[in-house]
Amino acid sequence: MKLLRFGPAGQEKPGIVDADGNVRDLSGKVADFAGAGVSLEALAEIAKIDVTTLPVVENPGRIGACLASVPNFFCVGLNYALHAKESGMDAPAEPILFSKASSALSGPFDDVIIPRKSTKADWEVELGVIIGKEALYVSEEDALDYVAGYCTINDVSEREFQIEKLGQWIKGKSAPTFGPVGPYLVTADEIGDPQKLDVSLKLNGETVQDSNTSDMIFSVREIVSYMSQFMKLQPGDIIATGTPSGVGMGMTPQRFLKPGDVMEITVEKLGTQKQTAVAAE
Amino acid sequence: MKLLRFGPAGQEKPGIVDADGNVRDLSGKVADFAGAGVSLEALAEIAKIDVTTLPVVENPGRIGACLASVPNFFCVGLNYALHAKESGMDAPAEPILFSKASSALSGPFDDVIIPRKSTKADWEVELGVIIGKEALYVSEEDALDYVAGYCTINDVSEREFQIEKLGQWIKGKSAPTFGPVGPYLVTADEIGDPQKLDVSLKLNGETVQDSNTSDMIFSVREIVSYMSQFMKLQPGDIIATGTPSGVGMGMTPQRFLKPGDVMEITVEKLGTQKQTAVAAE
Repeated sequence: MKLLRFGPAGQEKPGIVDADGNVRDLSGKVADFAGAGVSLEALAEIAKIDVTTLPVVENPGRIGACLASVPNFFCVGLNYALHAKESGMDAPAEPILFSKASSALSGPFDDVIIPRKSTKADWEVELGVIIGKEALYVSEEDALDYVAGYCTINDVSEREFQIEKLGQWIKGKSAPTFGPVGPYLVTADEIGDPQKLDVSLKLNGETVQDSNTSDMIFSVREIVSYMSQFMKLQPGDIIATGTPSGVGMGMTPQRFLKPGDVMEITVEKLGTQKQTAVAAE
Repeated sequence: MKLLRFGPAGQEKPGIVDADGNVRDLSGKVADFAGAGVSLEALAEIAKIDVTTLPVVENPGRIGACLASVPNFFCVGLNYALHAKESGMDAPAEPILFSKASSALSGPFDDVIIPRKSTKADWEVELGVIIGKEALYVSEEDALDYVAGYCTINDVSEREFQIEKLGQWIKGKSAPTFGPVGPYLVTADEIGDPQKLDVSLKLNGETVQDSNTSDMIFSVREIVSYMSQFMKLQPGDIIATGTPSGVGMGMTPQRFLKPGDVMEITVEKLGTQKQTAVAAE
């Protein structure tokens, strides 16, 4: 299933894409997509619905984030070897974890707001994993059984806030609109192996990131199992699984977002985002 | 107001402590304490209720976390000079931020579960700040206007996971039960200046942490303003403001939690927690 949320910000309704590519309105059947609303059980109930009985949405308008909120917005750092190198860091021997503030969640076509005092806002296309079942001490073998689905993510980052400010990376990852998610939550059954997906990002029409999830250092299976040794993952948690090389910080000279820049972010089978950078008020 | 949640885990009801120290049942008036349920507006509505008209709860039983869930469980690191020193780190020039997984949230009297493969589980008494209003680009002067209230927190930490594992601190801060919060959410009007509160922790009856929030390097006012430059704080977000010296990692020899150890955690005016450490299954 390809699930989405459509409508003005804060008033989105849940929908589903039918076999002909039409958006159908699910709001008569489910409250919204978030937390327990995207558990494996909840998705199994949606799968029982005859989609052709749902109202077609002739003009869906704005597409919002495919989740209304997230209990946690987790991220994996330096998970592609060439990106670690361009960041001036070693390829990690085990997954590096950090988080974004949950308020960074944003729609896939909404403007990305460059924060006040920011001079180093940067882009990061990533495969997003959405958890469907509580996961604690899960084996790698079983790990994919805890995944509800996948989505495209732009893990927008402010490099000065992230790296030059004292301490942990969360400072540079958490500004409002720094977490565009969607357009679709594509359920895991439609994706199969998550390590065979092209990931790419265009800046003003020029391809700057172009890789495949087969190049990830730690697979989705390894990440979910590893994280579950340290914390209980919950339905609706999102995990951004790391970005390949081609971010602005890694360019010579470095290149960061300016108002008017347009990013197009694609993960194969999961849809394309498009955002324009704007200055904070 | 002194707000709390009482009842079996997962079935807690919201309550309020009356002038005689009785718990009164608020479940007929409000859904629960979390997110918008602890916004300044929501608390102002509760303040209008004549508490004497509410049912007295003769036997409240278990007291749960004073929040049902948190959009974010933020923490400030190394915010007392002597604790930075005992951790072998410099006192920071600006606040260090990190987060716990929101699933770490736990009741103030529930067991603390030492994770599998853990040998360095540690305690940290902290003043907790609960946000009551969206905060973005807030001045220090105005920062306390965004605070709903305060609570006692034990920022339970696994030092190997936090420091010796690669990357960011979140790995050592996020295990289930690593975030005991409460017993009370005490509204800001009852506390006044948050920089005048004794904070202490007893391990098996012996006082091991004993300080005052006047010793914090960055005040609540500075922390809220600083964080709001990097992210939008939301109603119901919790901020653990750092721990004073006296953690197990700082002892000679180091001393970490063993099953059966009992912690009593107190912040002045906010109540005392008591937890027993147990081994993970």
